[in-house]
Amino acid sequence: MQLSSSLLENAVQAFATLPGVGKKSALRMALHLLKQSNEDVQLFANSIATMKKEIQFCRKCNNISDDALCTICKNKLRQQQTICVVESIKDVITIESTQQYNGVYHVLGGVISPLDGVGPDQLFIDGLISRVQNDAIEEIIFALNPNIQGDTTIYYIQKKLQNFNCKITTIARGIAFGGELEYADEMTLAKSLANRLPINTYVQ
Amino acid sequence: MQLSSSLLENAVQAFATLPGVGKKSALRMALHLLKQSNEDVQLFANSIATMKKEIQFCRKCNNISDDALCTICKNKLRQQQTICVVESIKDVITIESTQQYNGVYHVLGGVISPLDGVGPDQLFIDGLISRVQNDAIEEIIFALNPNIQGDTTIYYIQKKLQNFNCKITTIARGIAFGGELEYADEMTLAKSLANRLPINTYVQ
Repeated sequence: MQLSSSLLENAVQAFATLPGVGKKSALRMALHLLKQSNEDVQLFANSIATMKKEIQFCRKCNNISDDALCTICKNKLRQQQTICVVESIKDVITIESTQQYNGVYHVLGGVISPLDGVGPDQLFIDGLISRVQNDAIEEIIFALNPNIQGDTTIYYIQKKLQNFNCKITTIARGIAFGGELEYADEMTLAKSLANRLPINTYVQ
Repeated sequence: MQLSSSLLENAVQAFATLPGVGKKSALRMALHLLKQSNEDVQLFANSIATMKKEIQFCRKCNNISDDALCTICKNKLRQQQTICVVESIKDVITIESTQQYNGVYHVLGGVISPLDGVGPDQLFIDGLISRVQNDAIEEIIFALNPNIQGDTTIYYIQKKLQNFNCKITTIARGIAFGGELEYADEMTLAKSLANRLPINTYVQ
């Protein structure tokens, strides 16, 4: 694609670096902004630059935040003794959108994955241990993706936590609601059989 | 979607104003940028702000340009006596990507559309007339979208140009290459029958 302006070319290339955006969509975005008012485009560019410059990571849970402590850790109405351990900020947003969880979070910033060169030291695990040590945490809920890396991470952290008097659980894995047994993969079906629940403890 | 940072929220809202970007994609984009280095994000924001601030419109053809004259109008190798009239900058880019056209352009900035409140005065038509008057233009090729608005615009401009000694043509409309007669709409088929070409003038 040949553009008659290097300024436009630069903007298109910038947009094309975003996930899921190809050259054609990037051009559409740039031309769209070109039609907006000067102030609107300045606002657009500012909101992105400011986000990167001023955003902080909560010193307690590593979630993104406008201050030293995030709104979830600051919220007195939430159960500060229940921690849900997740891989990334995206997972916090996903779980929050269910509106079913009233505890706090701990964002690891990844999972242990030797193939990708990620070891426990690169993750925010020490922060979690010291929270369990100091804050009288009652329950740790692991909400990691169900794969080898997730399971390895759970195993590693659980070993570190075994001397503390704190319940450790993981979110249930099994057939998705609305899914069909016929189309479930064998691994999922096998695990959900092995981890079957007595009907009276099952939350409808 | 509840986000724990208003800075992130602002960036997501900014991205969500772009065409074809919903809230979820906007969040993905913002989180992607959050992972990049400070310099990269600053560059990203700058390239957009600079584009809007510094981009110009070619005073000859109304195409976007880094200078007063666009690279196409400045190019001595292109036939400056053949003008292709298009609706928008996007159409210039599309025609350029065929690499089959060696003349120059004229961007109207829209088409006559009374329903949308667009009259001839809002379009860059006077510029076209004065080019024909002053630059010894030999041919005007209309490449507007084949619909009522496009045809109205062609009719209006053609009336204004009838006293000049200049050939006026329009791009061929008919069955698309690779298309099938069976699935062509009646209007297209009827027009391509009416505008049939002698086989010896047809460019393969």
